[in-house]
This record gives sequence, structure tokens and C-alpha cells, in this order.
Amino acid sequence: MSLLRPCLRNVSRVVTRRAYSTIDENRSYGLKQAVAKVISDPQTEYSNTQELNYLSSSVNTNEDFASLVRLAARQSGQVRFDGAQVGYASRKKPVRVAVTGAAGQISYSLLFRIASGEMLGEDQPVILHLLEQPEALKALEGVVMELEDCAFPLLRGVVQTSDLAEAFKSVKYALLVGAKPRTKGMERGDLLRDNAKIFSAQGKALNDHADKSCLTLVVGNPANTNALIAASNAPDLAPENFSAMTRLDHNRALSQLSAKLSIGVEEIKNMAIFGNHSATQYPDVSQTGLTLDDQWTKATFVPNVQNRGAEIIKFRGSSSAASAADSALKHMHDWALGSEEIVSMAIPSDGSYNVAKGLYVSYPVKCHGQGKYTVVDDWKLNDYAKQKIDLSIKELQDEKKAVGELLKSPIDKRQANKQSASDNKK
Amino acid sequence: MSLLRPCLRNVSRVVTRRAYSTIDENRSYGLKQAVAKVISDPQTEYSNTQELNYLSSSVNTNEDFASLVRLAARQSGQVRFDGAQVGYASRKKPVRVAVTGAAGQISYSLLFRIASGEMLGEDQPVILHLLEQPEALKALEGVVMELEDCAFPLLRGVVQTSDLAEAFKSVKYALLVGAKPRTKGMERGDLLRDNAKIFSAQGKALNDHADKSCLTLVVGNPANTNALIAASNAPDLAPENFSAMTRLDHNRALSQLSAKLSIGVEEIKNMAIFGNHSATQYPDVSQTGLTLDDQWTKATFVPNVQNRGAEIIKFRGSSSAASAADSALKHMHDWALGSEEIVSMAIPSDGSYNVAKGLYVSYPVKCHGQGKYTVVDDWKLNDYAKQKIDLSIKELQDEKKAVGELLKSPIDKRQANKQSASDNKK
Repeated sequence: MSLLRPCLRNVSRVVTRRAYSTIDENRSYGLKQAVAKVISDPQTEYSNTQELNYLSSSVNTNEDFASLVRLAARQSGQVRFDGAQVGYASRKKPVRVAVTGAAGQISYSLLFRIASGEMLGEDQPVILHLLEQPEALKALEGVVMELEDCAFPLLRGVVQTSDLAEAFKSVKYALLVGAKPRTKGMERGDLLRDNAKIFSAQGKALNDHADKSCLTLVVGNPANTNALIAASNAPDLAPENFSAMTRLDHNRALSQLSAKLSIGVEEIKNMAIFGNHSATQYPDVSQTGLTLDDQWTKATFVPNVQNRGAEIIKFRGSSSAASAADSALKHMHDWALGSEEIVSMAIPSDGSYNVAKGLYVSYPVKCHGQGKYTVVDDWKLNDYAKQKIDLSIKELQDEKKAVGELLKSPIDKRQANKQSASDNKK
Repeated sequence: MSLLRPCLRNVSRVVTRRAYSTIDENRSYGLKQAVAKVISDPQTEYSNTQELNYLSSSVNTNEDFASLVRLAARQSGQVRFDGAQVGYASRKKPVRVAVTGAAGQISYSLLFRIASGEMLGEDQPVILHLLEQPEALKALEGVVMELEDCAFPLLRGVVQTSDLAEAFKSVKYALLVGAKPRTKGMERGDLLRDNAKIFSAQGKALNDHADKSCLTLVVGNPANTNALIAASNAPDLAPENFSAMTRLDHNRALSQLSAKLSIGVEEIKNMAIFGNHSATQYPDVSQTGLTLDDQWTKATFVPNVQNRGAEIIKFRGSSSAASAADSALKHMHDWALGSEEIVSMAIPSDGSYNVAKGLYVSYPVKCHGQGKYTVVDDWKLNDYAKQKIDLSIKELQDEKKAVGELLKSPIDKRQANKQSASDNKK
């Protein structure tokens, strides 16, 4: 960091005390570097550093102050991308993040953005734990080579494995992306049971190997029931630390409303997805304060959101990947770091809105950071909404029935085999 | 924005004037929102706003100050993701960004990150201009649906087209990603000429329709020669506003060095790629100050960097996409917004390092923002490096010869046809 000193001194000679008010035009390197230094060393005591004296002595007016805040904000983006350039290396301890189905399409859109800092912040180094089937490990190696090739300063390590214990060892975040897709001629019950086996084994492994505060997001479908199964096989982890993703549905709904009303997505508040992440989900607009034609809402908006996934496949020839990855990123970001506004997450029901306790249901949620959230439970829903939500809950109950036995007796053949193998050795 | 007021008032009651020094633990919503407000309204006069008074009155010590700078930096990341939540809508005018080959694999990893603000900053709204072959427009529609589904606050519009004029109309940034790939049994000469036709037409269209300050990055291979062709068909645009991508090679080299020496990528400075973006490129480590075994550098490091693309294909079964997209993002980011450290970019030679003027050659470059850069032209290279670079330059001269006629007479059949069609009408 000694690089900074001469540069700062040079700048001190030419930048007056009012420099901040015109920093937008000046792009002074000295200022930027001083800000970068302060941002990049969050653990250090700054009271007497040259950089901080320099920064603070330059702030005389509110205008200066606003410029500085904006500069810091901009610089932060700069620091993320120019990590290698400005000598930025976060002193935070790396956290371990597991991603399953790591060689798949969603993960291909997801991993690079996690490594760039978009999920947990540009000051949080990560170690990726990537789980794949043995037959996909070679393709995964290619993905990891590409991750290395990006030279992300925040990426501090990668574990590639098809072993559940290794995949979840000490992880603080788990994104369960991989799932068995429905193939032609497959019954829905078979799909549910095949995935139930996968997610019961993963829940068990998370229980035994992950950090006890691990936040687990289920992306793989049927996501809600998979989350239920994983959580019920992880008795030592809090059920609230499991969730299923309905953020993509949430954002799809925002986008549809934005297009219909010609307003920015950021202007739409208090919209949420209720129920199952499936075609029975119910996107509720009753609290948005927007003026919408009821007929349009019922006959166009709701079905459009419910069936958007199938619509994408028609055009792309394959299912949503980049948008699913984007939603997973945002779900985890808000869950870990908090969000100001209401978002949609499928979480264990606390009985709100008359849903049987324990089912994983999408609700309007406020995230407070560090995995804490509260359900927004005081919306007055109309009868139409209630009826639609009941239908979706009914579907979740049917799914639960179909996988009933796996909720109690986790099946993990690999674990069982290992166990008996080590038993034999004794 | 009236939402902010009551919230701020509430917080004012509980947060003391020393709150900033413990903001890391407190995560005060009022502070965060005040910072968000200041960041998100860069055009507004703040001297007398409640938010700014609140912020500035709380800063008494350098410690407060450091906390605030860090808060602003963190909040900036927050704002990007929670745009919809904190009511953030940038007041900057949107800029138009063209991407060719928009339904391809690299673009699929690129577009979502441009729309999220990673390329031009989280305060810069964008309108995407997506160019594809007519037969790929349906698949492109699926990609655009997914972009919409992400509800990016910064994405202000999308143009989908197979018409060059529409694709480049008023764009300030162009990423030429699409190119004809080499197929089995194809001669290198044919590949060069087929792509030369594509890039001469695109250069002509950029000349006629893009913003006069448009920055154009060529990603599609053979990238250097494609850039030369595009630029030479755009007489009204500055040749310096065209470049070809060697940032992926640059980052691959950083990653190889990082792995070899067990040091962070951010610790490696003054490394650069010289020459052509091909297997003849030369990654020079002579200015890094690192202690490296010369034998390893020559026999392992250089060939590893040169042949990394082929190596990835062996594992992935397809060529690098996400890492290429990441490099395009970083190249454009630094070119547009500046970078502190030396990066690699293929730009028109100014004669530095004995390269014939005008060839598009990768050099060590310092970016000053807004498209300005300077070649770092004072490195003392050893004879081995010079010899390797000469080989790469020789290859570029051969490529130039192979496409010679297209450097002067742009071939754009669609434009030519249009012209004769409108001539007929007269």
C-alpha cells in the first residue's frame, strides 16, 4: 500500500479543500485511492492515517459531503472490478458457498456473479463448493478453469466434488440448484419421489457437515417440497434457514406490471407471490396501490406470471437459466444482507394467511440481514385471492403426501454405504 | 421519496451523533436510506436537504468518517440490487449499448451483467441494442424475455433486430461478439475473409449510425484483424475508439501466476499481453518484479496462456463463454470509467515497441476513463520477448494481407441492396 503515499502527496499539492464539490468533473486519482484504501481495510483503525486526515480535512460543506458519499459509492464499484488494479484485498474471512448442479446451465450463469461479489458484497471473499454427479465432473473442471481465468480477487478457493460431505463441509450458504428434470412420459409422482431422494440426502448432509447457521436456498424443482424434505432431514438446523425460490416469479410479476402500466419496476411496491412455485402460484397486487383492470389482472396478468417459464422454453428451446440465476443471487443477497422492501420467499409457514404450519410457502417477507426475516402477515386479501392461494396450498399438501415417507426416514444410499463400509473396517 | 422522511425521523430519535462509528453492527435503516438517497440523485442540489443535514451532523471524528465512507460503498452495492426496494431510480440519461451475436453463449453470460450495472456503473441506465441473424431472432426473443424477468431497474429498453442500421443507431458502446466460427475442414484464409465481410459491414454501419464517440470492442475472432477491418470501414470514427479484447488472456496470465506463486491476483502488477489475440500472443512478466524460474516461464507459463482456450474446450466441450463475457465487461468498464492499473487491450499501434503503425496490437495500457487511454511504452523488453512479439506481429501482418481488399472497399450486401432498392424507387 506504500504506492498510495507518494500519489496522495502529489495530489495534496493541487487539490484545494473544496475539491470534493467538483470531484465529479475532476476524477482525482488521489481522492479515489484514499477512498479505496478506506473501503478496502474495514478492520483497520483509521484515526491517524494520512488518507483519512486528507479525506476529512477536505469536507467543509454539505455539498462536499454529498460529493464524497457519491465518490465512495462509485469507487466501491471501481474497487470491485479493479480489485487487481487498486491493490484491493478484503480482509474479511472468506465464507464457503455450496452450489449443487454446478456444471448445469443455471450455475453457469450464477457462479461467476457470486465470485464477482454480487451476492454477498464486494468485500466478502468466497470459497465455492461445487457439487456434481461423477459423470459431470469433467465439464465442471472446465467451468472452474473459466472461473480461475476471470482472476476474481474475491474468489479464494474452489472445491469440486461429487461427495455430499465434502460439498457441504463448513458452508455458510448453500444453493441447491441441481434437481432431476421431468422427462417425457414421466409421472409427476415419480418426479417428486426422485427429487425427494436427492433432497433428503442433501438435507442430511447439510445437517451433518454445514455450518449450523447455514442458509439454504432450494432452486431445483419442485422447489417448495424439496425444501421441506431437505429441512425435515436436517434436525439440527433451523427450518427457517431453509427457503425455496419464488423471487423469479416475483420479478416476472414486477416486469409484467411495469410493461402494462409503463412505469419503472422500482415504482412497484408491496407485490408478492403466494403459495407454491408452480403454475398454481398467486401473484397478489391488491396492496400495490396501482390502478389495474380487474379483468386484466385475473385473465392475463396472473396466468402470464404462472406460465412464464413454459413461455420462455417455447422461444429459447431450453428453460430459464440466466434469469433464474439472477433471482437466486438476489434472494441470497437480500437474505444475507437485508432488503428495504418486501420480497417473495418460500419459507416454513408460521400459520399466517391460514396456511398449515410447516409447509414451505411463498409469502411477502421483509429481510433484515444475516438470515433474519419476518412474514408480512397483515395484508387483507380478498376472497378471490384467498381461493387461489388455497388451491396452491392444496397442491403443496398433495406433494407432501406423495413424498411422505421421505420426510421421516432420510434415504442417502451413499451415506449408508459409507457407513457400512466403515462399520466393516471396525 | 416521501417514504424516507418518516423513517428518518424515527431513526433520528434513537441514533446518537456517534452512530457512524458502530454502523457496521447497527445496520441502521435510516442511515442507509439517507445514503441511498444521496447516491441516487446525483443531479440534485443537496445543500439543504434533511438527509444530508442528518448525515453530516453525525460525523465528528475520523472514525465516523471512515464508517460513513464504508457505508456509502456498501450501500452502493445494496442500491444496485435493491433498486426496486429502496426506490432507487438513477436520473442519468440512459445510454445505448449494442451487442452482436446476442443470442449466442457469450452474450448470454454478458447481457444480464450489463443490465445489472456491472459494466457502466450502478447509476447508468442502459438501452440494449441486440443484433442477431434473422434465424436466431426467435431464440433472442427468449433471452429478452428473461432480461425482462429480472426486473433490472437500470434496463430502460431493448431493441432486437437483424438490421445493422437499427442495431447501431445512436449507440455509445458496441460489443461485437458475434463472428463466424471456424468449422471442420475450413481454411484459415476462408475464416479470415468470411469474418472480414461481417466486420467491414459492421464498421460501415457503425460509421453511419453510431454516436460519433462510440467505443467499439471486438470480441469475435480473429479479433485484432476484425477490429482493423471495422475501423478502416468507419472513416468518420476515431481508430482509437476501436479495440480488440485481450483482457481474457491478461486475466488468464494473472491466474496462472497467482496459482504458481500462491499469491493473490491483486498482488500482481505490470503484466501485459503483447501482440495478437491468438496462440502467438506474448504474456510478458518482465516488469512484474516477481521471482520466476525462466524455464517455467518459457516452457509452461507462456504456452499455457497461449493455449488456454483450446484447453477449456477439451473439458467443457464448448469454448469459453462466461469468462469471455467477464473480460468483455471488465475491458469496457475500464475503457469507459478508467482503471488505476495497467491492463491489456489491442488498440491501433502508435509505433510503440517497433510495431508497424495502424495494426491492432495488444499493449500494456492505462485507461483514464471516457475512452481515453495511453500505451505504456517504456518497458525494456529482453530479446526473447522481442522475438516472440515480432512473431505475433508477423501473424497480424499476414492476416492483414489475407483480407487486404476489404480494408478499402467495404462489402455490405444488405446496404448495397438497400441502396439499389431505393435508387430504383427514385
